[in-house]
Amino acid sequence: MSKRQIKLGLFLLPTGQHVAAWRLPETVADMHMNAAYYAELARELEAAKFDLLFLADGDGIHGGWPLEALSHTANRVVAQFEPLTLLSALSQHTSHVGLVATASTTYYDPYRVARLFGSLDVLNGGRSGWNVVTTANTDSSENFGYTETPSAQERYDRAEEFVEVVKGLWRSWDEDAFIRNKETGEFFDPSKLHRLDHQGKHFTVKGPLNVPRSPQGHPVIVQAGSSGPGKALAARTAEIVFTAQPDKKKAQDFYSEIKALAETHGRSPDDLKIMPGMGVTVAETEEEAKAKVAELEALIDPVVGLTHLSSFLGFDVTGYPVDGPLPEIPEASAKIIQSRQKLFIDMARDENLTLRETYIRASVSKGHLNVVGGPTQVADLMEEWFADKAADGFNVMPSAMTGGIANFARLVVPELQRRGLFREEYEGTTLRENLGLKCPE
Amino acid sequence: MSKRQIKLGLFLLPTGQHVAAWRLPETVADMHMNAAYYAELARELEAAKFDLLFLADGDGIHGGWPLEALSHTANRVVAQFEPLTLLSALSQHTSHVGLVATASTTYYDPYRVARLFGSLDVLNGGRSGWNVVTTANTDSSENFGYTETPSAQERYDRAEEFVEVVKGLWRSWDEDAFIRNKETGEFFDPSKLHRLDHQGKHFTVKGPLNVPRSPQGHPVIVQAGSSGPGKALAARTAEIVFTAQPDKKKAQDFYSEIKALAETHGRSPDDLKIMPGMGVTVAETEEEAKAKVAELEALIDPVVGLTHLSSFLGFDVTGYPVDGPLPEIPEASAKIIQSRQKLFIDMARDENLTLRETYIRASVSKGHLNVVGGPTQVADLMEEWFADKAADGFNVMPSAMTGGIANFARLVVPELQRRGLFREEYEGTTLRENLGLKCPE
Repeated sequence: MSKRQIKLGLFLLPTGQHVAAWRLPETVADMHMNAAYYAELARELEAAKFDLLFLADGDGIHGGWPLEALSHTANRVVAQFEPLTLLSALSQHTSHVGLVATASTTYYDPYRVARLFGSLDVLNGGRSGWNVVTTANTDSSENFGYTETPSAQERYDRAEEFVEVVKGLWRSWDEDAFIRNKETGEFFDPSKLHRLDHQGKHFTVKGPLNVPRSPQGHPVIVQAGSSGPGKALAARTAEIVFTAQPDKKKAQDFYSEIKALAETHGRSPDDLKIMPGMGVTVAETEEEAKAKVAELEALIDPVVGLTHLSSFLGFDVTGYPVDGPLPEIPEASAKIIQSRQKLFIDMARDENLTLRETYIRASVSKGHLNVVGGPTQVADLMEEWFADKAADGFNVMPSAMTGGIANFARLVVPELQRRGLFREEYEGTTLRENLGLKCPE
Repeated sequence: MSKRQIKLGLFLLPTGQHVAAWRLPETVADMHMNAAYYAELARELEAAKFDLLFLADGDGIHGGWPLEALSHTANRVVAQFEPLTLLSALSQHTSHVGLVATASTTYYDPYRVARLFGSLDVLNGGRSGWNVVTTANTDSSENFGYTETPSAQERYDRAEEFVEVVKGLWRSWDEDAFIRNKETGEFFDPSKLHRLDHQGKHFTVKGPLNVPRSPQGHPVIVQAGSSGPGKALAARTAEIVFTAQPDKKKAQDFYSEIKALAETHGRSPDDLKIMPGMGVTVAETEEEAKAKVAELEALIDPVVGLTHLSSFLGFDVTGYPVDGPLPEIPEASAKIIQSRQKLFIDMARDENLTLRETYIRASVSKGHLNVVGGPTQVADLMEEWFADKAADGFNVMPSAMTGGIANFARLVVPELQRRGLFREEYEGTTLRENLGLKCPE
C-alpha cells in the first residue's frame, strides 16, 4: 500500500474567503461572471497537483442580510455561475483535477441530480464529486414554492433516501454494456442495463438512468454536515467529509468518531477522507502574510463588518458607532449559536474592544481553522494535523483568490512535497484514483 | 435593414437521424459518450457559420420500445450526455455558434431552469437557447414519481406560467447592476436588483435569481410544439419555432398562421424565426447521395425497422416475416396518428410492398422534410422554401452525423453563400445578434 499523503482541495468562493478580498487592488473583481478567470484558476490548481476544486452552492441570494450590506459584498452567493454548468466548462480546460459541486437534496429531484452529475462525470472522464447538502434557509425554499423549511430530521431523512436513489441510478449501466457491434447490429447488451424500480417514503423512481457509467463508476460522494444526522449520513455514505474544525483536539475527536462510525457500517476507515476547511494567508514571510491580513482588515466596509458580527450576536449592531464599545446584547435566541455569541461578547468586554475591532476578529475564520504565515508555518500546521489524525487533507480557503492560489502553489506545495507529504504527480486520471478511493462495483 | 437570409441549425442526434447511421463504417459509434467528438462537430459547425446547435432531450430511456429493439439502436435517448452539461463544455470550444438545449416544463422547476440556462448564457457570452417542451411520456414521469402523465391542456397551462416565471427571473439583474467599485466598497447597485415575487396557479417563486444578466439579455426561447396549445405558446413567447413540415404548402400555412398569431400578441413577425427540420443526405452528386441512402437502408436491423413501423401502425408487426406482406392491421387507437397509419397501410397495399420495403419507407423522414441529392438540389429546395415563406431557416438533420456535417458545410453552405442566401461571416457574437432577434429590455 502506498504512503498516506495529504489530500488537497480548493474551496472556491468568488474573490476569496475574506469579505473584503474583492477590494484588494490585485483582485479580479468580476470573477463571479468571468469564466476565463475560473479556467485559469483551474489550470493553476492542476499544475499544483491539487486533488479537487470545490464549489459551494445555494439556490437563492443571501437574503438573511439586508440589501445595503449585501450590496457591499462579493463572495456571498449573490449572482454567479451555477456549479454544474461552470464545472462542465472547466472540465474542458483540465484533465486531472477533481471537480466537486454542491447540490441540495431538499429542492432537487434525485433523477435530475443523478443525470446532471452522471453526465459531468462522463464529460470529464471520471473526475466529479457531489457534495450532498440539505437546505434550511428561506432564500432557497421561497424560490421553490415552500413557505416553511423542513426540520433537520425531515431534511436528513429525505437526503438519505435521495442519496440511495441517486447511487442506484448510477448503477443503471454496466461498464461493458455498450458493444456497438456494427456487424451484428447490437448496440448494447440488454442484460447489462438495470432498472432501479425504487419505491420509498419520499421517492418513486423507476429508472434506468439515461447516462452511461463513468470511468470512475460514479461521482465521489462528499458530505459537509457536522450535526448528528449529518455525521450519520457521512459515516454511511460519504467518501469525503468537509468540516469546520478550528481546534485540533476537537478535530481529532471528530476524525476518530466518523471513522469509527463508518466501520460500524462495514466500511474501511480509508473509504472516507476527512478534509477540514483551512483559511490560508501565505507569503514569503510571516510579516508579509500579516501585512496582507492587515490590508484586508482595513478594507472591511463597516456595514459588512457590522452585519457579519450581528449574525453571530443575534442582535443588530449596524446602527451603533463603529468606534464605540459593544452595546448591551440580549440573550441569544435559538437561531444563533450561543457559544459563538458569548465568545464575541466576552472578547469585546475583556479586551475593551471597539465594534470595529470586534468585527475584525469575527471576520477572520468563520469557524474554520485559519493560518497566516510563511510556507514553513503553514506546512508545519498541516503536517501536525495530518500526522496526528485530525485530517486526511484540507479544503484550502485562500483569504483572497487572486494571488492566493498562486502563492499556495508556489510556496506551500513544494514544501509539502519536500517532506514527502504531497504527491509530485497525479496517481491516475480519475478523482477516485487520486484520492485512493474504491471504484463502486 | 439587412437582407433576409437563411438561418441554420443542426439537430444533433448522436450518430445521426437515420436509425442505422451508427452502423456505417465511417460513423463514430461511441459518440453518445465521446465529448471530444462533440467538440469537433461544434467547431465544424462554427467554421461553417451555422447559427446554432440544437439538442433534443428526454428524462428517461425510450421505454416505449421493447428492449430487444432498443438495444439495436443508437440514436434514441438511451445513454448519453445531459444537454446543459454538454453545452457548457462545448461553449469552451466555440465562440459564435448558438447552443440550444431542450428542458421540459413538466418535470423541472422554473427556478432551476432559469438558473441553469442563465448560467450557461453567461458562460458562453450570450449564445444560449432554451427549447421549451412539455413531456407526455411515461418513461419520464415514472422517474419523477408520477403514475400518470398530465393532459396536454394541463401541461401547456403549466408551461405558460413556467416560461413567464423563468423570463421574470432572468430580469433579476440589470445589465449595469455590478459596479464593483473598490474605492467606495459598492459591489452592486441595490436599485438594479429586482425581486420577482411571483404567485401564480402553479408556482410561487420569490426570486431574485442568483445569476447575472447575460450579454444577450437572456437565452433565446425556442418552441417545438405544433399542437393547438403549442402554437399558442409559440406565438406568444417563442423566438425560434422548430416544426416538422414535410409539405411546402402546409409549411406556408403554418408559417403565416404563427406569424399572424404573433402579431395579435403585439409582436413583429420578425421576432420569431420558423425553422422546420430538414433531413439531409448530400454528396457531390445525386447518385452518390442515393447510394448512401441505399447503404443506410440495407443496414436497418429488421427488429428496429419493424418496431419503428409498428409505432406508426399502432400494431406490433415484429413477429411477422420480414419479406412477407403487411398483415391485417386493426383500426387506429387514439394513441397514434391515424393519418400516418393509413398512409403506410395504403402504401403497402397499393404498391404490393413487403414488410421490409414498408419499414424502409417509414425510416426515411420521421415526419420531416427530407432531401437526398447533390448540392444544387439541396440548395434549390432550401431557397424555394425560404423565398416562398415556408421557412426562415432550417434545422438540418443529417441522416448520418459522421461526414454529414462536413458534407453539408463543404457542399451546401458555399452554394447558399454564392446565392447570397447565407452569411459569409457572423453578424455578432451573441445568438440574438446572429438571428437578428431583439435583446430583451
